[in-house]
Amino acid sequence: MKTIPLIQFGLGGVGRAVVQRVLASRDDFEWRYGLQLIYVAISDSRSAAIEPDGFSHAQLLTMLEAKAAGQSLADTEFGYARGELTDIIDVAGMDDAIVIDVTATEETTDALLLALRRGYGAALANKKPLAGPMEAFRALTGSGRLRYESTVGAGTPVIAMLRQAIIASHDPVQRIEGCFSGTLGFLTTGLEEGRSFSELVTEARALGFTEPDPRDDLGGMDVARKALILARTLGWPLELTNIPVEPLFPPELAEGSVDDFMAALPQLDEDYRQKVAAARAQDKTLRYVATLAEGQASVRLQEVPVASALGQLRGSDNLAAFHTEVYNQTPLVLQGRGAGVHGTAAGVLADIVALADK
Amino acid sequence: MKTIPLIQFGLGGVGRAVVQRVLASRDDFEWRYGLQLIYVAISDSRSAAIEPDGFSHAQLLTMLEAKAAGQSLADTEFGYARGELTDIIDVAGMDDAIVIDVTATEETTDALLLALRRGYGAALANKKPLAGPMEAFRALTGSGRLRYESTVGAGTPVIAMLRQAIIASHDPVQRIEGCFSGTLGFLTTGLEEGRSFSELVTEARALGFTEPDPRDDLGGMDVARKALILARTLGWPLELTNIPVEPLFPPELAEGSVDDFMAALPQLDEDYRQKVAAARAQDKTLRYVATLAEGQASVRLQEVPVASALGQLRGSDNLAAFHTEVYNQTPLVLQGRGAGVHGTAAGVLADIVALADK
Repeated sequence: MKTIPLIQFGLGGVGRAVVQRVLASRDDFEWRYGLQLIYVAISDSRSAAIEPDGFSHAQLLTMLEAKAAGQSLADTEFGYARGELTDIIDVAGMDDAIVIDVTATEETTDALLLALRRGYGAALANKKPLAGPMEAFRALTGSGRLRYESTVGAGTPVIAMLRQAIIASHDPVQRIEGCFSGTLGFLTTGLEEGRSFSELVTEARALGFTEPDPRDDLGGMDVARKALILARTLGWPLELTNIPVEPLFPPELAEGSVDDFMAALPQLDEDYRQKVAAARAQDKTLRYVATLAEGQASVRLQEVPVASALGQLRGSDNLAAFHTEVYNQTPLVLQGRGAGVHGTAAGVLADIVALADK
Repeated sequence: MKTIPLIQFGLGGVGRAVVQRVLASRDDFEWRYGLQLIYVAISDSRSAAIEPDGFSHAQLLTMLEAKAAGQSLADTEFGYARGELTDIIDVAGMDDAIVIDVTATEETTDALLLALRRGYGAALANKKPLAGPMEAFRALTGSGRLRYESTVGAGTPVIAMLRQAIIASHDPVQRIEGCFSGTLGFLTTGLEEGRSFSELVTEARALGFTEPDPRDDLGGMDVARKALILARTLGWPLELTNIPVEPLFPPELAEGSVDDFMAALPQLDEDYRQKVAAARAQDKTLRYVATLAEGQASVRLQEVPVASALGQLRGSDNLAAFHTEVYNQTPLVLQGRGAGVHGTAAGVLADIVALADK
């Protein structure tokens, strides 16, 4: 039996789902892989909790409850106001440790690099460290001990498929097309069904499908980060600024308050209605598509044939279509739930298994 | 630079494609993984060729040409009439060796077991050794050094996805449905388009989509073997005889010559026409489906909703739909070219990389 100490940055929705999943699968890990997973450190944005012998099941549940109730870790008996995340690596790090980054900030980069220098593994659902400068991507991924399945497509194994079916098979990529936003999938499906843009954005926001400011989703930067991570995984040395991104709203709505933005949305309805009708007249439909081809990536609203894999996609599912030398007539297609904390947490767990099992 | 000696059983269409792919990707392997792949032994059904220092590029091309021209390895200057495959392992085996099984016979099982006992890796496109007794499956896969991505879905990474996205994520499987025969996909798509069963079988045979005796495909046993391998990968201790298989022809046509069978096919046309019409009346269509659920597997012609992932499938593409606890609303779907020597060879290469890179 091998003990794997876990250090987790982030205890929001995904972070809590990861802890729950680790707890629920402990017995299975022990008999299937001979691995015992223990949490030695957990941090949130302001505080941390450290226990070199591993937190008990009950202690972890207490932390989850506190966080779910809107408290900070420092509000529990285990937590304290934390300094730098690198300090946590220094204090809690030990042989075979794995750092789990389920935050949404680039601030974890230094701590991840320190952990990798110490020989630890790292599992990321956080895109930001991998979508910074190419140099940082290389430093983070160069050791082969950092995995990031959940950064693209949540739990849908887009990265694993790219590695296994395309890169390791030495099958040259001609083009990758994908829909990597459940929120924008919900919108484009709704547009296709004849609903208005403003109504759909308002509903998506009310349902919690968007960030509090829906421009964070409609702007396309989150999709661009995913496209960048895929491109870099293929070995293409792109920067985020190299990726043309077409937001779903005009530049004049980029400024101003969220309320102003929501109030201005109906101005866009007629334009979207016309776009949908123009696409339909050619047996096409609108999708928000990331395209990778010939060393370049782009992200934009696009007309795709209704009969294509992208055109058949519905609702918040994600889809990646790989056109390669082997898959030249019809693409290799991976489709599945691309959002939700449980899918993301499942992908993180798969990364932990792969790292721990090495 | 690490040298990986390859021992390959089988030099038919897939076998030749694997050799070509290894040759074409050698430079890439060296710089990307620091691995040098050399062929130390190759066998076909009657002969073998062994070269402990590794065959040269030119020697391998000579063998490929001879085989493509219908000759045996023994007809080349390198080959000799072989004895048992285990003898080849004895003579050619060396540290870090990988055995590639691209035959279509269970006769390789003993040699594979011997290779695994010696600590070598094994990459299989051959289903037969894994579809024999459960005991043999366990003995072959227990070491973790035998990979078999290409046994199901050709190069489409169905097995990798099952491992990465489902098993390693600790995501309980509720149901797996799949179309795992390009040939039967071609048939069911043609039926949906209104063509007759006899015409489609005749065309598929003429195009080389079926075995010389098309009953080898229409009988469903090849699909049943794939379902068995998926079930066993999930840990279900099934035997091939536990899987109900519904052939696409009635029992009275199972005997007799191929010519008699082909001549009798038009008798089935009206029955299939009615089945297609009955399905269409309910917005359904026919697919030849492998289903895994609750520890059991089955293989049969089935009505599926036109709007489902299986119903949308066209032509010879394969598809696997995973319904799990995480993927409970819509399944995780993998779709791609499921036939063809190049896809299969690409999957074998990915397995070689994974084994060599350990």
